[in-house]
Amino acid sequence: MAISDIERLIQLLARLPGLGPRSARRVALQMIKKRETLMLPLAAALQQAAESIRACTICGNLDTQETCAICRDPERDATIICVAEEVGDLWAIERSGAFKGRYHVLGGTLSALDGRGPDQLNVAALMDRLRPADDGTMPVREVILALSVTVDGQTTGHYIAERLAGAGVSVTRLAHGVPVGGELDYLDDGTLSAALKARGPA
Amino acid sequence: MAISDIERLIQLLARLPGLGPRSARRVALQMIKKRETLMLPLAAALQQAAESIRACTICGNLDTQETCAICRDPERDATIICVAEEVGDLWAIERSGAFKGRYHVLGGTLSALDGRGPDQLNVAALMDRLRPADDGTMPVREVILALSVTVDGQTTGHYIAERLAGAGVSVTRLAHGVPVGGELDYLDDGTLSAALKARGPA
Repeated sequence: MAISDIERLIQLLARLPGLGPRSARRVALQMIKKRETLMLPLAAALQQAAESIRACTICGNLDTQETCAICRDPERDATIICVAEEVGDLWAIERSGAFKGRYHVLGGTLSALDGRGPDQLNVAALMDRLRPADDGTMPVREVILALSVTVDGQTTGHYIAERLAGAGVSVTRLAHGVPVGGELDYLDDGTLSAALKARGPA
Repeated sequence: MAISDIERLIQLLARLPGLGPRSARRVALQMIKKRETLMLPLAAALQQAAESIRACTICGNLDTQETCAICRDPERDATIICVAEEVGDLWAIERSGAFKGRYHVLGGTLSALDGRGPDQLNVAALMDRLRPADDGTMPVREVILALSVTVDGQTTGHYIAERLAGAGVSVTRLAHGVPVGGELDYLDDGTLSAALKARGPA
Protein backbone atom coordinates (compact mmCIF):
# COMPACT_ATOMS: atom_id res chain seq x y z
CA MET A 1 0.00 0.00 0.00
CA ALA A 2 1.23 3.43 -0.95
CA ILE A 3 0.17 5.37 2.14
CA SER A 4 1.01 2.67 4.65
CA ASP A 5 4.10 4.31 6.17
CA ILE A 6 2.13 7.32 7.31
CA GLU A 7 -0.89 5.26 8.35
CA ARG A 8 1.32 3.04 10.44
CA LEU A 9 2.85 6.11 12.08
CA ILE A 10 -0.59 7.53 12.84
CA GLN A 11 -1.79 4.22 14.30
CA LEU A 12 1.18 4.10 16.66
CA LEU A 13 0.78 7.75 17.65
CA ALA A 14 -2.91 7.16 18.36
CA ARG A 15 -1.92 4.61 21.02
CA LEU A 16 -0.13 7.26 23.10
CA PRO A 17 -2.08 8.40 26.16
CA GLY A 18 -4.12 11.52 25.46
CA LEU A 19 -3.94 11.18 21.68
CA GLY A 20 -6.83 9.87 19.60
CA PRO A 21 -6.92 9.20 15.86
CA ARG A 22 -7.62 12.85 15.07
CA SER A 23 -4.82 14.34 17.15
CA ALA A 24 -2.48 11.57 15.96
CA ARG A 25 -3.09 12.73 12.40
CA ARG A 26 -2.39 16.33 13.39
CA VAL A 27 0.81 15.30 15.15
CA ALA A 28 1.94 13.23 12.16
CA LEU A 29 1.36 16.09 9.71
CA GLN A 30 3.15 18.54 11.98
CA MET A 31 6.11 16.21 12.23
CA ILE A 32 6.34 15.71 8.48
CA LYS A 33 6.45 19.49 8.17
CA LYS A 34 9.30 19.64 10.68
CA ARG A 35 11.15 16.58 9.44
CA GLU A 36 14.69 17.72 10.24
CA THR A 37 14.02 19.65 13.43
CA LEU A 38 11.45 17.41 15.10
CA MET A 39 10.70 14.09 13.40
CA LEU A 40 14.22 12.71 12.98
CA PRO A 41 15.46 14.00 16.37
CA LEU A 42 12.42 12.42 18.02
CA ALA A 43 13.05 9.10 16.27
CA ALA A 44 16.64 9.19 17.49
CA ALA A 45 15.65 10.21 21.03
CA LEU A 46 13.13 7.37 21.23
CA GLN A 47 15.68 4.84 20.04
CA GLN A 48 18.33 6.19 22.40
CA ALA A 49 15.99 6.32 25.41
CA ALA A 50 14.63 2.84 24.71
CA GLU A 51 18.17 1.49 24.78
CA SER A 52 19.57 3.43 27.71
CA ILE A 53 16.77 3.92 30.21
CA ARG A 54 16.26 1.25 32.86
CA ALA A 55 14.64 0.98 36.27
CA CYS A 56 16.95 1.67 39.22
CA THR A 57 17.65 -1.67 40.92
CA ILE A 58 17.22 -0.06 44.35
CA CYS A 59 14.15 2.16 44.09
CA GLY A 60 12.59 1.60 40.66
CA ASN A 61 13.14 5.16 39.41
CA LEU A 62 14.13 5.50 35.75
CA ASP A 63 17.71 6.32 34.90
CA THR A 64 20.41 5.49 32.39
CA GLN A 65 22.52 3.86 35.11
CA GLU A 66 21.85 0.79 37.21
CA THR A 67 21.52 2.92 40.35
CA CYS A 68 19.56 6.13 39.79
CA ALA A 69 20.84 9.65 40.41
CA ILE A 70 18.72 10.00 43.56
CA CYS A 71 19.95 6.74 45.11
CA ARG A 72 23.54 7.70 44.20
CA ASP A 73 23.30 11.19 45.73
CA PRO A 74 25.11 11.16 49.12
CA GLU A 75 23.46 14.47 50.05
CA ARG A 76 20.03 12.87 50.25
CA ASP A 77 18.73 11.42 53.48
CA ALA A 78 18.79 7.64 53.10
CA THR A 79 16.86 7.16 56.36
CA ILE A 80 13.58 8.48 54.90
CA ILE A 81 11.93 6.61 52.03
CA CYS A 82 9.00 8.06 50.16
CA VAL A 83 6.85 5.34 48.59
CA ALA A 84 5.28 6.36 45.26
CA GLU A 85 2.97 4.46 42.92
CA GLU A 86 4.66 5.37 39.67
CA VAL A 87 7.76 7.14 38.42
CA GLY A 88 5.54 10.05 37.36
CA ASP A 89 4.54 10.57 41.00
CA LEU A 90 8.20 10.52 42.02
CA TRP A 91 8.91 13.22 39.44
CA ALA A 92 6.00 15.31 40.73
CA ILE A 93 7.36 15.16 44.29
CA GLU A 94 10.85 16.01 43.01
CA ARG A 95 9.48 19.06 41.20
CA SER A 96 7.98 20.32 44.46
CA GLY A 97 11.51 20.40 45.88
CA ALA A 98 10.06 19.63 49.30
CA PHE A 99 11.61 16.20 49.81
CA LYS A 100 15.29 15.40 50.24
CA GLY A 101 15.14 11.69 51.12
CA ARG A 102 15.09 8.62 48.89
CA TYR A 103 12.21 6.99 47.02
CA HIS A 104 10.65 3.63 46.39
CA VAL A 105 8.47 3.12 43.33
CA LEU A 106 5.81 0.42 43.67
CA GLY A 107 4.94 0.27 39.99
CA GLY A 108 1.20 0.58 40.58
CA THR A 109 -1.38 -0.08 43.25
CA LEU A 110 -3.23 -3.13 44.41
CA SER A 111 -6.38 -3.40 42.32
CA ALA A 112 -9.17 -5.91 42.67
CA LEU A 113 -10.67 -4.67 39.41
CA ASP A 114 -7.48 -5.05 37.37
CA GLY A 115 -6.45 -8.18 39.28
CA ARG A 116 -3.19 -6.71 40.61
CA GLY A 117 -2.08 -8.40 43.82
CA PRO A 118 0.86 -7.74 46.19
CA ASP A 119 3.17 -9.90 44.06
CA GLN A 120 2.91 -7.48 41.16
CA LEU A 121 4.11 -4.58 43.31
CA ASN A 122 7.73 -3.82 44.12
CA VAL A 123 7.18 -4.43 47.87
CA ALA A 124 9.72 -7.18 48.55
CA ALA A 125 12.52 -4.83 47.53
CA LEU A 126 11.14 -2.22 49.96
CA MET A 127 11.22 -4.74 52.80
CA ASP A 128 14.84 -5.55 51.91
CA ARG A 129 15.78 -1.91 52.23
CA LEU A 130 14.37 -1.77 55.76
CA ARG A 131 16.27 -4.82 57.07
CA PRO A 132 18.55 -3.97 60.05
CA ALA A 133 22.32 -3.99 59.45
CA ASP A 134 24.50 -6.71 61.01
CA ASP A 135 25.19 -4.47 64.02
CA GLY A 136 21.45 -4.06 64.54
CA THR A 137 21.19 -0.41 63.38
CA MET A 138 18.09 0.45 61.34
CA PRO A 139 18.93 1.88 57.92
CA VAL A 140 15.56 3.64 57.60
CA ARG A 141 13.62 5.55 60.23
CA GLU A 142 10.57 6.73 58.29
CA VAL A 143 8.51 5.52 55.34
CA ILE A 144 6.19 8.13 53.82
CA LEU A 145 3.29 6.70 51.83
CA ALA A 146 2.73 9.19 49.00
CA LEU A 147 -0.14 7.33 47.35
CA SER A 148 -3.22 8.48 45.48
CA VAL A 149 -6.29 9.22 47.58
CA THR A 150 -8.30 6.63 45.65
CA VAL A 151 -9.73 3.33 46.83
CA ASP A 152 -6.85 1.42 45.24
CA GLY A 153 -4.23 3.85 46.50
CA GLN A 154 -5.52 3.75 50.05
CA THR A 155 -5.89 -0.05 50.00
CA THR A 156 -2.27 -0.24 48.91
CA GLY A 157 -1.29 2.15 51.69
CA HIS A 158 -3.03 0.01 54.31
CA TYR A 159 -1.40 -3.12 52.96
CA ILE A 160 2.10 -1.63 53.08
CA ALA A 161 1.53 -0.11 56.54
CA GLU A 162 0.54 -3.59 57.75
CA ARG A 163 3.58 -5.20 56.18
CA LEU A 164 5.80 -2.57 57.85
CA ALA A 165 4.09 -2.88 61.24
CA GLY A 166 6.89 -4.89 62.90
CA ALA A 167 9.79 -3.39 60.96
CA GLY A 168 10.60 -0.69 63.49
CA VAL A 169 10.07 2.28 61.15
CA SER A 170 7.52 5.02 61.52
CA VAL A 171 5.01 4.97 58.67
CA THR A 172 3.40 8.28 57.66
CA ARG A 173 1.13 9.46 54.86
CA LEU A 174 0.66 12.74 53.03
CA ALA A 175 -1.71 15.23 54.67
CA HIS A 176 -5.19 15.65 53.22
CA GLY A 177 -6.56 19.16 52.90
CA VAL A 178 -7.43 22.12 50.72
CA PRO A 179 -5.11 22.28 47.67
CA VAL A 180 -2.99 25.42 47.63
CA GLY A 181 -4.72 27.76 45.18
CA GLY A 182 -7.94 25.80 45.53
CA GLU A 183 -11.30 27.45 46.05
CA LEU A 184 -13.44 26.04 48.83
CA ASP A 185 -16.55 26.40 46.74
CA TYR A 186 -15.30 23.84 44.23
CA LEU A 187 -13.89 21.40 46.76
CA ASP A 188 -15.49 18.01 47.31
CA ASP A 189 -17.02 17.20 50.69
CA GLY A 190 -14.46 14.53 51.58
CA THR A 191 -11.53 16.88 51.20
CA LEU A 192 -13.33 19.64 53.02
CA SER A 193 -14.16 17.48 56.04
CA ALA A 194 -10.59 16.09 56.07
CA ALA A 195 -9.25 19.66 56.05
CA LEU A 196 -11.59 20.60 58.91
CA LYS A 197 -10.60 17.61 61.02
CA ALA A 198 -6.89 18.26 60.49
CA ARG A 199 -7.17 22.01 61.13
CA GLY A 200 -4.25 23.75 62.80
CA PRO A 201 -3.40 27.10 64.34
CA ALA A 202 -3.73 30.04 61.92
CA MET B 1 23.77 14.32 33.14
CA ALA B 2 22.22 11.03 34.11
CA ILE B 3 18.60 11.77 33.27
CA SER B 4 19.28 13.63 30.04
CA ASP B 5 18.06 10.94 27.62
CA ILE B 6 14.61 10.96 29.08
CA GLU B 7 14.53 14.73 29.51
CA ARG B 8 15.52 15.20 25.90
CA LEU B 9 12.73 12.83 24.86
CA ILE B 10 10.20 14.75 26.97
CA GLN B 11 11.35 18.08 25.54
CA LEU B 12 10.85 16.82 22.00
CA LEU B 13 7.47 15.29 22.81
CA ALA B 14 6.36 18.57 24.40
CA ARG B 15 6.85 20.28 21.02
CA LEU B 16 4.17 18.16 19.37
CA PRO B 17 0.86 19.94 18.82
CA GLY B 18 -1.58 19.34 21.68
CA LEU B 19 1.08 18.09 24.11
CA GLY B 20 2.47 20.23 26.90
CA PRO B 21 5.25 19.38 29.35
CA ARG B 22 2.87 17.46 31.59
CA SER B 23 1.35 15.25 28.91
CA ALA B 24 4.77 14.80 27.33
CA ARG B 25 5.97 13.31 30.62
CA ARG B 26 2.97 11.01 30.74
CA VAL B 27 3.57 9.91 27.15
CA ALA B 28 7.25 9.28 27.82
CA LEU B 29 6.54 7.14 30.89
CA GLN B 30 3.89 5.18 29.04
CA MET B 31 6.29 4.50 26.20
CA ILE B 32 9.06 3.33 28.52
CA LYS B 33 6.55 0.90 29.98
CA LYS B 34 5.73 -0.38 26.49
CA ARG B 35 9.25 -0.34 25.16
CA GLU B 36 8.99 -3.30 22.80
CA THR B 37 5.41 -2.86 21.65
CA LEU B 38 5.23 0.93 21.32
CA MET B 39 8.47 2.85 21.81
CA LEU B 40 10.77 0.99 19.44
CA PRO B 41 8.08 0.50 16.74
CA LEU B 42 7.31 4.22 16.93
CA ALA B 43 10.99 5.13 16.62
CA ALA B 44 11.24 2.89 13.56
CA ALA B 45 7.99 4.22 12.05
CA LEU B 46 9.17 7.82 12.50
CA GLN B 47 12.51 7.08 10.87
CA GLN B 48 10.84 5.17 8.04
CA ALA B 49 8.19 7.81 7.42
CA ALA B 50 10.75 10.63 7.54
CA GLU B 51 12.74 8.90 4.82
CA SER B 52 9.92 7.73 2.59
CA ILE B 53 7.17 10.35 2.74
CA ARG B 54 7.29 13.19 0.26
CA ALA B 55 4.91 15.73 -1.24
CA CYS B 56 3.24 14.65 -4.49
CA THR B 57 4.82 16.68 -7.30
CA ILE B 58 1.42 17.22 -8.90
CA CYS B 59 -0.95 18.05 -6.06
CA GLY B 60 1.13 18.37 -2.86
CA ASN B 61 -0.53 15.43 -1.08
CA LEU B 62 1.79 13.24 1.01
CA ASP B 63 2.80 9.84 -0.29
CA THR B 64 5.77 7.52 -0.51
CA GLN B 65 5.89 7.86 -4.28
CA GLU B 66 6.60 10.90 -6.41
CA THR B 67 3.01 10.94 -7.68
CA CYS B 68 0.44 10.29 -4.96
CA ALA B 69 -2.12 7.48 -4.95
CA ILE B 70 -4.95 9.89 -5.75
CA CYS B 71 -3.19 11.46 -8.75
CA ARG B 72 -2.24 7.96 -9.98
CA ASP B 73 -5.79 6.60 -9.66
CA PRO B 74 -7.32 6.45 -13.19
CA GLU B 75 -10.79 6.00 -11.67
CA ARG B 76 -10.78 9.52 -10.25
CA ASP B 77 -12.13 12.41 -12.27
CA ALA B 78 -9.14 14.49 -13.37
CA THR B 79 -11.38 17.28 -14.63
CA ILE B 80 -12.41 18.41 -11.15
CA ILE B 81 -9.76 19.74 -8.77
CA CYS B 82 -10.55 20.39 -5.13
CA VAL B 83 -8.23 23.03 -3.65
CA ALA B 84 -7.38 22.45 0.02
CA GLU B 85 -5.23 24.46 2.42
CA GLU B 86 -3.37 21.57 4.01
CA VAL B 87 -2.95 17.83 3.62
CA GLY B 88 -5.05 17.36 6.75
CA ASP B 89 -7.99 19.03 4.99
CA LEU B 90 -7.50 16.73 2.00
CA TRP B 91 -7.64 13.74 4.34
CA ALA B 92 -10.83 15.07 5.94
CA ILE B 93 -12.51 15.38 2.54
CA GLU B 94 -11.30 11.89 1.59
CA ARG B 95 -12.80 10.47 4.79
CA SER B 96 -16.17 11.92 3.85
CA GLY B 97 -16.06 9.79 0.69
CA ALA B 98 -18.06 12.46 -1.10
CA PHE B 99 -15.43 13.55 -3.62
CA LYS B 100 -14.02 11.49 -6.46
CA GLY B 101 -11.93 14.08 -8.29
CA ARG B 102 -8.35 15.19 -7.75
CA TYR B 103 -6.86 17.61 -5.25
CA HIS B 104 -4.49 20.51 -5.04
CA VAL B 105 -2.88 21.36 -1.70
CA LEU B 106 -1.94 25.02 -1.26
CA GLY B 107 0.23 24.50 1.81
CA GLY B 108 -1.50 27.24 3.80
CA THR B 109 -3.44 30.45 3.28
CA LEU B 110 -2.51 34.00 2.52
CA SER B 111 -1.97 35.74 5.83
CA ALA B 112 -1.21 39.38 6.41
CA LEU B 113 -0.52 38.65 10.07
CA ASP B 114 1.98 35.86 9.41
CA GLY B 115 3.38 37.58 6.34
CA ARG B 116 2.44 34.79 3.91
CA GLY B 117 2.01 36.09 0.37
CA PRO B 118 0.95 34.35 -2.87
CA ASP B 119 4.53 33.20 -3.55
CA GLN B 120 4.49 30.98 -0.48
CA LEU B 121 1.42 29.10 -1.73
CA ASN B 122 1.44 26.29 -4.25
CA VAL B 123 -0.61 28.34 -6.77
CA ALA B 124 1.72 28.36 -9.77
CA ALA B 125 1.50 24.56 -9.95
CA LEU B 126 -2.31 24.85 -9.90
CA MET B 127 -2.23 27.26 -12.86
CA ASP B 128 0.00 24.79 -14.73
CA ARG B 129 -2.56 22.05 -14.25
CA LEU B 130 -5.28 24.20 -15.85
CA ARG B 131 -3.30 25.06 -19.02
CA PRO B 132 -5.07 23.90 -22.22
CA ALA B 133 -3.58 20.95 -24.10
CA ASP B 134 -1.92 21.50 -27.50
CA ASP B 135 -5.18 20.69 -29.25
CA GLY B 136 -6.94 23.37 -27.20
CA THR B 137 -8.96 21.04 -24.93
CA MET B 138 -9.23 22.09 -21.29
CA PRO B 139 -7.89 19.45 -18.89
CA VAL B 140 -9.99 20.76 -15.97
CA ARG B 141 -13.59 21.94 -15.98
CA GLU B 142 -14.15 22.82 -12.31
CA VAL B 143 -12.06 24.02 -9.39
CA ILE B 144 -13.70 23.64 -5.97
CA LEU B 145 -12.31 25.94 -3.30
CA ALA B 146 -12.52 23.91 -0.07
CA LEU B 147 -10.99 26.53 2.20
CA SER B 148 -11.57 27.48 5.83
CA VAL B 149 -14.32 29.99 6.49
CA THR B 150 -11.87 32.35 8.17
CA VAL B 151 -10.64 35.75 7.05
CA ASP B 152 -7.42 34.23 5.74
CA GLY B 153 -9.16 31.29 4.09
CA GLN B 154 -11.67 33.51 2.33
CA THR B 155 -9.00 36.00 1.27
CA THR B 156 -7.10 33.10 -0.25
CA GLY B 157 -10.27 31.93 -1.98
CA HIS B 158 -10.87 35.37 -3.51
CA TYR B 159 -7.27 35.55 -4.64
CA ILE B 160 -7.40 32.17 -6.36
CA ALA B 161 -10.79 32.87 -7.92
CA GLU B 162 -9.32 36.05 -9.38
CA ARG B 163 -6.26 34.25 -10.73
CA LEU B 164 -8.54 31.66 -12.35
CA ALA B 165 -10.91 34.24 -13.80
CA GLY B 166 -9.65 33.95 -17.39
CA ALA B 167 -8.70 30.27 -17.29
CA GLY B 168 -11.99 28.95 -18.63
CA VAL B 169 -12.86 26.79 -15.61
CA SER B 170 -15.84 27.17 -13.33
CA VAL B 171 -14.78 28.05 -9.78
CA THR B 172 -17.03 26.92 -6.93
CA ARG B 173 -16.81 26.91 -3.14
CA LEU B 174 -18.20 24.68 -0.39
CA ALA B 175 -21.73 25.53 0.78
CA HIS B 176 -22.21 27.32 4.09
CA GLY B 177 -24.96 26.12 6.39
CA VAL B 178 -26.02 24.27 9.50
CA PRO B 179 -23.56 21.43 10.30
CA VAL B 180 -25.18 18.00 10.15
CA GLY B 181 -25.89 17.07 13.76
CA GLY B 182 -25.62 20.73 14.80
CA GLU B 183 -28.17 22.36 17.07
CA LEU B 184 -29.50 25.72 15.92
CA ASP B 185 -29.37 27.11 19.42
CA TYR B 186 -25.59 26.82 19.53
CA LEU B 187 -24.97 28.07 16.00
CA ASP B 188 -23.30 31.43 15.39
CA ASP B 189 -25.24 34.21 13.66
CA GLY B 190 -23.09 34.20 10.52
CA THR B 191 -23.70 30.51 9.83
CA LEU B 192 -27.40 30.86 10.61
CA SER B 193 -27.93 33.75 8.22
CA ALA B 194 -25.88 31.95 5.53
CA ALA B 195 -28.07 28.87 6.00
CA LEU B 196 -31.21 31.01 5.74
CA LYS B 197 -30.04 32.77 2.58
CA ALA B 198 -29.12 29.47 0.92
CA ARG B 199 -32.33 27.71 1.96
CA GLY B 200 -33.76 25.11 -0.37
CA PRO B 201 -36.91 23.00 -0.77
CA ALA B 202 -37.58 20.68 2.20
